[in-house]
Amino acid sequence: MSIMQYSKGTGVNENWLVEESAFDSRYLGKCEAIFCQGNGYMGVRAALEEEYVSETRNMFVTGTFNKFHDTEVTELPNFPDVTKIIFQINGKVFSLDQGTIHHYERVLNIKNGEVTRIVDWESKDGERIEFKFLRTVSMKDEHVIASKVELKPISGDIALKIISGIDGTVSNSGSQHFAEGSKRLYDFTYLEMVSETIESKVTAAIHTAHRFYLNGEEVKVTTLPVIGRREIKINASIELKKDQVLVLEKISTVHTTRDLVYDGMEAEKSIKSVKVDGKKNIEEAFALGYDKILCESAQAWEEIWNQEDIQIDSVNPFDQLAMRFGIYHLNIMVKKDDNRVGIGAKALSGEGYKGHSFWDTEVFILPYYLMTQPKTARTLLEYRYKNLYGARLKAKEQGYEGAMYPWESAWIDDGEVTPLWGAADVVTGETLKILTGIIEQHITADIAFAVWQYYIVTRDEEFMNLYGYEMIMDTARFWASRLEWNEAKNQYEINDVIGPDEYKEHVNNNVYTNYLAYYNMNLALELIGKIRENNTEVYDRINGLFSLTKLEEDLGDKLPKLYLPQPDKETGIIPQFDGYFDLKYIDLTKYKQSSIVGTIYNDYNMEQINEFQVLKQGDLVVLLYLLDDLFDAETKRKNYMYYEERTLHDSSLSKSTHSVLANDLGLHEDAYHFFVGASSIDLGEEMKSSDAGIHSASMGGIWQSAVLGFGGVRVVGQQLRIAPSLPKEWNSLSFRVVWRGTPLKVTVTKETVSITNLSHAVEILVYDEVVDLEKNATFTTKVRG
Amino acid sequence: MSIMQYSKGTGVNENWLVEESAFDSRYLGKCEAIFCQGNGYMGVRAALEEEYVSETRNMFVTGTFNKFHDTEVTELPNFPDVTKIIFQINGKVFSLDQGTIHHYERVLNIKNGEVTRIVDWESKDGERIEFKFLRTVSMKDEHVIASKVELKPISGDIALKIISGIDGTVSNSGSQHFAEGSKRLYDFTYLEMVSETIESKVTAAIHTAHRFYLNGEEVKVTTLPVIGRREIKINASIELKKDQVLVLEKISTVHTTRDLVYDGMEAEKSIKSVKVDGKKNIEEAFALGYDKILCESAQAWEEIWNQEDIQIDSVNPFDQLAMRFGIYHLNIMVKKDDNRVGIGAKALSGEGYKGHSFWDTEVFILPYYLMTQPKTARTLLEYRYKNLYGARLKAKEQGYEGAMYPWESAWIDDGEVTPLWGAADVVTGETLKILTGIIEQHITADIAFAVWQYYIVTRDEEFMNLYGYEMIMDTARFWASRLEWNEAKNQYEINDVIGPDEYKEHVNNNVYTNYLAYYNMNLALELIGKIRENNTEVYDRINGLFSLTKLEEDLGDKLPKLYLPQPDKETGIIPQFDGYFDLKYIDLTKYKQSSIVGTIYNDYNMEQINEFQVLKQGDLVVLLYLLDDLFDAETKRKNYMYYEERTLHDSSLSKSTHSVLANDLGLHEDAYHFFVGASSIDLGEEMKSSDAGIHSASMGGIWQSAVLGFGGVRVVGQQLRIAPSLPKEWNSLSFRVVWRGTPLKVTVTKETVSITNLSHAVEILVYDEVVDLEKNATFTTKVRG
Repeated sequence: MSIMQYSKGTGVNENWLVEESAFDSRYLGKCEAIFCQGNGYMGVRAALEEEYVSETRNMFVTGTFNKFHDTEVTELPNFPDVTKIIFQINGKVFSLDQGTIHHYERVLNIKNGEVTRIVDWESKDGERIEFKFLRTVSMKDEHVIASKVELKPISGDIALKIISGIDGTVSNSGSQHFAEGSKRLYDFTYLEMVSETIESKVTAAIHTAHRFYLNGEEVKVTTLPVIGRREIKINASIELKKDQVLVLEKISTVHTTRDLVYDGMEAEKSIKSVKVDGKKNIEEAFALGYDKILCESAQAWEEIWNQEDIQIDSVNPFDQLAMRFGIYHLNIMVKKDDNRVGIGAKALSGEGYKGHSFWDTEVFILPYYLMTQPKTARTLLEYRYKNLYGARLKAKEQGYEGAMYPWESAWIDDGEVTPLWGAADVVTGETLKILTGIIEQHITADIAFAVWQYYIVTRDEEFMNLYGYEMIMDTARFWASRLEWNEAKNQYEINDVIGPDEYKEHVNNNVYTNYLAYYNMNLALELIGKIRENNTEVYDRINGLFSLTKLEEDLGDKLPKLYLPQPDKETGIIPQFDGYFDLKYIDLTKYKQSSIVGTIYNDYNMEQINEFQVLKQGDLVVLLYLLDDLFDAETKRKNYMYYEERTLHDSSLSKSTHSVLANDLGLHEDAYHFFVGASSIDLGEEMKSSDAGIHSASMGGIWQSAVLGFGGVRVVGQQLRIAPSLPKEWNSLSFRVVWRGTPLKVTVTKETVSITNLSHAVEILVYDEVVDLEKNATFTTKVRG
Repeated sequence: MSIMQYSKGTGVNENWLVEESAFDSRYLGKCEAIFCQGNGYMGVRAALEEEYVSETRNMFVTGTFNKFHDTEVTELPNFPDVTKIIFQINGKVFSLDQGTIHHYERVLNIKNGEVTRIVDWESKDGERIEFKFLRTVSMKDEHVIASKVELKPISGDIALKIISGIDGTVSNSGSQHFAEGSKRLYDFTYLEMVSETIESKVTAAIHTAHRFYLNGEEVKVTTLPVIGRREIKINASIELKKDQVLVLEKISTVHTTRDLVYDGMEAEKSIKSVKVDGKKNIEEAFALGYDKILCESAQAWEEIWNQEDIQIDSVNPFDQLAMRFGIYHLNIMVKKDDNRVGIGAKALSGEGYKGHSFWDTEVFILPYYLMTQPKTARTLLEYRYKNLYGARLKAKEQGYEGAMYPWESAWIDDGEVTPLWGAADVVTGETLKILTGIIEQHITADIAFAVWQYYIVTRDEEFMNLYGYEMIMDTARFWASRLEWNEAKNQYEINDVIGPDEYKEHVNNNVYTNYLAYYNMNLALELIGKIRENNTEVYDRINGLFSLTKLEEDLGDKLPKLYLPQPDKETGIIPQFDGYFDLKYIDLTKYKQSSIVGTIYNDYNMEQINEFQVLKQGDLVVLLYLLDDLFDAETKRKNYMYYEERTLHDSSLSKSTHSVLANDLGLHEDAYHFFVGASSIDLGEEMKSSDAGIHSASMGGIWQSAVLGFGGVRVVGQQLRIAPSLPKEWNSLSFRVVWRGTPLKVTVTKETVSITNLSHAVEILVYDEVVDLEKNATFTTKVRG
């Protein structure tokens, strides 16, 4: 039986609780990541209070990037820890690796963001204790982490020692980003650690305070303050009688000079402020106490859920839980008002990918915000506008013009931060070079695509004028300079790239890259003409940066000659890149059966995998999903079938895309199969897949499978189209989308689709029917096949 | 019953084995430190193969100092680890925290330097396995670490997975000194990690290789190389039948660009060489295999013991074991041929004191080398000569002339490296400033004292000419500039210092400091005259550095006016410093009863302790031990008794000094009591005292208590005096000392002292009798009371 249980919640908590129903120290990483708590400002991995060898104790604060050393790339530093609490019972450390566990359950409550753990444990020597651990990272006050531990000895009296404080010995797998800094204790209550990142000079002020209750009464406990290397803590001793209940509250706050409030402030002043503000904040939060902090945070969550909840009535309640799990993470992974930061591939839940932003944001995560919280979408795209600095830097370094977005981004002005070296080559024993930072280039077009999607959905002219047009044009300028002329074939090509399918390196004319680049350039070409006529101010500003006339000429000249791979006349299959059909077919059954990704690397090295028709994810599938009017349905279906057989789905981005496209093609069983697959990437029963952090793109993927897939929501031309089609397992689906500033409530049952307009009148497309939806009106129609 | 057992050894191993007889994860630090293995080049803490939360996994290489950050001081970096080996049995990690331990024993064999561990363990699920772990750090080839694990499932077949390699995620309590560096695998056998310290740019090349035997036959095991962040390892899988014996050999080598062989080589070349040499070395060592490496190392140890063993026939066999334990550590803590490095206060066995050298070396450790390995003593003093650079730097910074030795030293040119901030003040909550680096100044005289002792014992004119005279004169120059004129009292004083007793800060006219400074200056004054007459070349060289005429005048003028505290006329007690008698007396019983040092800090802060008559160690006692002709026996006895009552012995240097002095005073019971106390500091049953590493001065202390104390060996004037006097618990004591290049074998029984001259004729003093000892002659006399 799996440790993971999904049916814990009943009554008001039905399909809101994720449960870890047993303790297994081999799988700590799983729930550390998926039970990660946060608020966009910070992410606190759900490491248990007591220590384990296999734990990963992480706290990340968005945008606090630092570079440990010249030979490494910038990454999100692991912050001094406040979650650890060591309990010594009659001199022996409490650890679930020892003694007997009579009961264990740990629950993430998605509704209010709280993680609770109930443990009934007996030591080797027979001391039996009931523990209850509660932890909240406030959604109300983004700086606050609150813990509460209830502890009751039920076998006899115990001498209890509690060691707790701030631990700055944590690192990123051994790379230490913080100087030791200063430590002190105020009023015998407030522990303080102030430390600075060694290269980026971000100062973090961490404060923590403890309070004890005995049988409900606050008590003074003998505590000794201890200041050691990189740590400040208290050492509290108390004699507990049998059945007495001790409650420990530990409240902590985290502030950094990188916080939005200090933006633009001179360094010295912000360092002073961060200490003062942190101190003030801990005093306030400590005065509130755990229960009030939880209450306030739960209220903030309630407001989010009132807007964001998506209801799925499925024969498999897991679907509903997974949907909410996705939305939970989508709402803690981003600081919605800070345009200086992106979203990490593992959000703030693990060290994986170092907190860097990939195309994942624009293609897999952004659609959620775009359709539900357009302001957040704008903030994220503003980050990419600021990121133009790094994109221009990268283009220049690589010998191109315009803006070539980094494959991995951290600070807005960092440029490319993809690490150069990765895992071992099983054949040669050498460390492998990571090529994505150099030749995985489609992200530049992906961002341009996202900008235009944003505009279509929001009609946010201000954004376009300030940022959007410039982004689209400067990315087009990159592509124009990137194209390579093939004299023999009389065509422009894009050679030596990696497409979304990273199992193929150094390919020519990757179908995804070429089509997206075409889209990007074509869009720019159209918009140059448009803004020259209607928006001279913006035209002049951009033209002042680089010549739009020259760009227009260049695009006009090159676009018609850009090679776009076409379906094979006999088979109808579009080659993923030049020569794909010449590669060797291999049977993937062995690898597809494994629940672990990347197992093909155990048998083959990259060079060998490059020679097979095997795909990590389908380039065609992503392309057909984004640009769904390129080919007819039959060609789409054929290509989907052909490539899926050859796809390992070793990318967490793969299944959700397949789900949406399968829906488009009427392959409902496939669609549901892939929805469940996508939903299970982090939440499911595979216990090692989330060790390095949750897959943030996959959270967007769950939403896409449901809303864009089964909900049939899509931008078609300049219109919103809603064309739902539920899988047989679902009785109903209810969600909200925001179109041109108007929230629309969509409810789909087996029979009907009903759309209620919650604001001003808009025109939408329901299936192929144009519907004018008045304010507060509801339109209902039958579900079509 | 204590975990520590001292009677494991029988037959040829009698009093050679230290045993940890049970596993308790609370006390891992104890045997990690005291079972530390090494060879002077490197020290490998005896962390167990499998991981524990409370472990400290350390490997240090002498002299590879690095500074993590501007706000920290230089320290010995913790090297990438090769000792960890993870075993998974049927998918579950082997850990003694879980399941049932049917048998456990771990033994340090002092004779051959090997650590062995035998474990019979049963998992929670009933898999029962017999393990035998063996580990050697070669005394023959200083770069080699060898491990061997024998493993036999006795309850049934098991699926075994072994994960082992090089782990660069280790740090110094969170401070990371190494860049990630490069990792690769050669010939599917040799793992390599090459990394550089981030500030001092020392490149370390670590290599490791694995070999498997099944029932005695070498076998190929399915292994997968894994390269992760800061790690390179193999993942080996094997199915073991019941009662099959699997043997794993893991051989590793460590090389650094700081190695003596690369001294003076240009950086680029040494980085290349260190890789090539490391690769060659691992190939050779791996070809040898564990047993041969152990054999060669044991031979090297045998040669050491042939010279160094001291035999004690005691009613408490612990005394003999402790003596050898001390000698073991004295012979792995120093690289005997490298004058660029000192000895750390915790040697190479822990992070404590960061690998820095203190006065401990000259006053507590050097006497051992001086009397047994004068070449090593010279090397250590040459380090202090090189250290003059830092000493002159420090004097200049503090506004003095001459050479003011750093309280803590690392690199020879670092100057003072005492950290500025320490533990928490229990009263104010503030972090305490560490003052020793500024005002604990006696070390400068201690080094001058040691230089002259070296000369008396060796008559090494070359050393004096090249280094010794200059050191004595430049330190005297410091003191001359340091003296403060007290107009009212018409005397020179030394104010605002810390003496050896660190429980008293900011004292004036500390008795130890003033007398040693006097000694230093007086010695210089005598020697200036002497070398001016007999050694003009050296005189001119030093006079070229600073004016000896001026120094001579200065010393001649100031010395007679330097205030030297005298016995109180009524009580005969010499004040430890100005105003000592005015301090408050407190009853120390509570703290003296605790086996843990520093417990007084739990009740009082430094400011308060400063106001009590309490001592960490006795300044007078150390003074009377070093300069034993200052006062008459009665005054010495009185002062010893008076101050001992007020002494907490919270310094590991305290008990051995008390033992020697008690012997001088005929207080034999005290002497033995303190000998046992000094012997127990690391080796004894207190399980937390060695967590940060062994007390290297205490190892010298054991030797001093035995040889200088009971053996009565002392330099008196320009003569060697031997005046033994055994405690009632000892039947005999037999040791070797080297006097003026002549090894003398001394055997003491209850009745007789017999001294055999193993080389050229010398004159010595036995008790008060002048003895001319011919080559190979033996002199025997009666033991006197």
